[in-house]
Amino acid sequence: MSFHKLDDLGRRLEALSHALAILGADEATHMAVGGGEARAEAMASLAGMQHRQATAPEIADWISAAEAEDLSDDQRAAVREFRRQYTNLTCLPAEFVEKQTRVRMRCEQLWRDLRAKNDWPNFLPALDGVIALVREEAAMRADALKLDPYDALMEQYDPGNRAADIAPVFDELKTFLRGFVPEALAVQEERLVKRPLKPLSGVYSVERQRELGLAVMAAVGFDFTHGSLAVSHHPFCGGVPTDVRITTRYRTTEFLSALMGVLHETGHALYEQNLPAEWAHWPLGKARGMAVHESQSLFVEKQIGRNPAFWVWALPLVDKHLGEDWSIDDILPHVHHVERGLIRVDADEVTYPLHVILRFELERELVAGTLSTADIPEAWNARMEDYLGLSTLDLPADGPMQDVHWPSGALGYFPSYTLGAMMAAQQWAAFEQEAGDPAADFAAGRFDAVNDWRREKIWSQASRWSTPDLIEKATGEPLNAAHFMAHLKARYGRQ
Amino acid sequence: MSFHKLDDLGRRLEALSHALAILGADEATHMAVGGGEARAEAMASLAGMQHRQATAPEIADWISAAEAEDLSDDQRAAVREFRRQYTNLTCLPAEFVEKQTRVRMRCEQLWRDLRAKNDWPNFLPALDGVIALVREEAAMRADALKLDPYDALMEQYDPGNRAADIAPVFDELKTFLRGFVPEALAVQEERLVKRPLKPLSGVYSVERQRELGLAVMAAVGFDFTHGSLAVSHHPFCGGVPTDVRITTRYRTTEFLSALMGVLHETGHALYEQNLPAEWAHWPLGKARGMAVHESQSLFVEKQIGRNPAFWVWALPLVDKHLGEDWSIDDILPHVHHVERGLIRVDADEVTYPLHVILRFELERELVAGTLSTADIPEAWNARMEDYLGLSTLDLPADGPMQDVHWPSGALGYFPSYTLGAMMAAQQWAAFEQEAGDPAADFAAGRFDAVNDWRREKIWSQASRWSTPDLIEKATGEPLNAAHFMAHLKARYGRQ
Repeated sequence: MSFHKLDDLGRRLEALSHALAILGADEATHMAVGGGEARAEAMASLAGMQHRQATAPEIADWISAAEAEDLSDDQRAAVREFRRQYTNLTCLPAEFVEKQTRVRMRCEQLWRDLRAKNDWPNFLPALDGVIALVREEAAMRADALKLDPYDALMEQYDPGNRAADIAPVFDELKTFLRGFVPEALAVQEERLVKRPLKPLSGVYSVERQRELGLAVMAAVGFDFTHGSLAVSHHPFCGGVPTDVRITTRYRTTEFLSALMGVLHETGHALYEQNLPAEWAHWPLGKARGMAVHESQSLFVEKQIGRNPAFWVWALPLVDKHLGEDWSIDDILPHVHHVERGLIRVDADEVTYPLHVILRFELERELVAGTLSTADIPEAWNARMEDYLGLSTLDLPADGPMQDVHWPSGALGYFPSYTLGAMMAAQQWAAFEQEAGDPAADFAAGRFDAVNDWRREKIWSQASRWSTPDLIEKATGEPLNAAHFMAHLKARYGRQ
Repeated sequence: MSFHKLDDLGRRLEALSHALAILGADEATHMAVGGGEARAEAMASLAGMQHRQATAPEIADWISAAEAEDLSDDQRAAVREFRRQYTNLTCLPAEFVEKQTRVRMRCEQLWRDLRAKNDWPNFLPALDGVIALVREEAAMRADALKLDPYDALMEQYDPGNRAADIAPVFDELKTFLRGFVPEALAVQEERLVKRPLKPLSGVYSVERQRELGLAVMAAVGFDFTHGSLAVSHHPFCGGVPTDVRITTRYRTTEFLSALMGVLHETGHALYEQNLPAEWAHWPLGKARGMAVHESQSLFVEKQIGRNPAFWVWALPLVDKHLGEDWSIDDILPHVHHVERGLIRVDADEVTYPLHVILRFELERELVAGTLSTADIPEAWNARMEDYLGLSTLDLPADGPMQDVHWPSGALGYFPSYTLGAMMAAQQWAAFEQEAGDPAADFAAGRFDAVNDWRREKIWSQASRWSTPDLIEKATGEPLNAAHFMAHLKARYGRQ
């Protein structure tokens, strides 16, 4: 039976994925500094083995044969995802992938150096080379997938997402935020006049912050028999579903950034830990994609972790571990702080979508060829002034040079962040409609109900549905910006 | 060129070895408890890939062709070790290896359960199955390697070691120790009458012991840019040469066992860290074998770490980290404690060889078929009474059931421990003859001279020579028990 061949293939690929995932997490957390070169060689070699095994020509025959076999529903879904993976992996010629890898790696290396020097002119030729290859890649993917070029790029990250569906939703959100950001800032200003911000500064040892983080992780559902928390320079969620490695970084002068990071990564971890174990070695068993993954991390960080009811429960825990005696009114202005800024990764949930929409709009033009790489700084600045009233003309380092995505050729990825935020709000609204406001549960440290709902609607579904279908099945409607806008209005708007 | 094919093969196999080494170390130190099953599946699958890639039929042709090519000395040595590896890996049929793996794993599982219950009768049939397959394995290896069956088993662990060479050396050592153990015990007794043992008990936090261990590791030459120290249930040295992972375990009531464990594993680590980097992806670039590896760990643990001059330097460091104020005369009786016991892994350096010689003698008879598995307990007991004056007839758990080696089918391995101890003493004697007694250096915390000597003579040689040739080249003479006996007499004998 050809399905068994695919099943065996899945196990072999899973072994290599497992190794790459653990080696990657280990590299960022426990590797000796001098171990990097041999680790990079080993991982490149394992990734090469994985790619060769996943793209072997006979697999196409196995998939076609399996599609004609008498299979269970799960198996049929598994074959469909095997085909999706195979198509995405084989639609680019090997020589093209090698060339692209070289050009991207060179551009990323240059970027690390030149971003620090705020040097756009010397960065431009390298980035232009990457963009030229992205256009070629998009054309080849579009041809293989029968999709528009930009959609073909997004398809790698969020199967089923189409720019024609997303653009109107983003436009609606953009229109709303151009009015709402000033409102939220004014509301904040009025509040601060009435009650000045109380600084949360202090000296908080890494060990105490870690204990606090572990307590919060356990409460919101992290399974410590299948995962752990470590320290790394950039927080991440890695490892494998049976052993999820999340990390944070600590500043000893304040605790909120590490704790919020822990909540964010815990959201990713809950998705991984609750994927169906019996599908673990099939593409079907993986998390659906980047936008859905981000919806899970943002659900925990924003919907749960910045919910006032959460802080009713969490404050005594913070006091216990850090020995501080703050009130809800002391902490919420920090948790809900809004500020216009140039840097996406530092942005709050109100301004963040404008950073993403800006990039989405420019990316589509870059891929379509209606924007040239050389014109990015002006186009970026024009939108930055329009959306957030900030200029980056003299500071490309904090403008189009701030992210690794473009130098590494990952166009089509940015939308996932804001789609995730919208999906999280939409899931929250659907849960609330079914089960009522969980504020009382949260205030008592109970998060079972929201987790049970997400386990059924999202986590257990793995890659059973396309991204839009998953959201529609989970929430009863297609992606709808209204829920996210309502969420922002309730939390940051004039009451 | 066929050599390039072997070189490429080496890189692919090295990537899998790297993954298996790091996954193995990670499993014992950082893996979540629920991650074991998926980890075991992944590692089994990777090991299978490695075995298939390392035993592909075309490799035999590459090796033969490379042997006829115009190669450098290093490359010729590399081809020789490729052939050795290939022959050792391919001399057993795949079905036999699979059957043996099942029988061994089942016996090991039974052993864990039945050792705790001191239940020899129910263990016997499983062990007998393993021994029967070991005899088959030895016959097949002997046939392929043109060696005696027991030598063919040893060849996996210490290339070039032959029982006909080792047995007389072991006999000489045994004869010496049967007289020397009573002498050493009497000397110890007389000393304790004059100056009663001062207990070293206290409360030593894991963190303080760890800091002490790190300081000692750094002083004796461990390179922290290429390795680290962690905690595991059983201490080990794992990882890869560019990132050596050593572990220890701590008791908070005493510090000496953890520190001695750290020194032992540091000895293994120094060998790995100082192997020639340019050969790292060839079998030639690996450590020579188990006996030489053990000689390096014992060199650091016994020759350096139990040297009185070492303690002149180390005691102030111990005082600094643990806040104790002991004298050399307080600590040395603990460091040099001798005691007859049933358990090999708990034995001191005086009695340890008798445990190994007992096993070596029984193993040879088991492989030859002159001893049946059923007769092991009586044969064990007879030798135990003869060599150490202890009976194990009622306690097979602490007799022939105490080690994992036989249930796992690793016959031919035990000699390595005592060969390592003898080689360490012989290296010490050769170094001392060339450079003089390093006592003054040790007392000042300087270990460069012994490290430089071992780097040149042992570490940089990797697998260039057979085990006996390596020792002869390093020390100027073949294995000679006299050095180890002189070492024991000087440290434990009547002065």
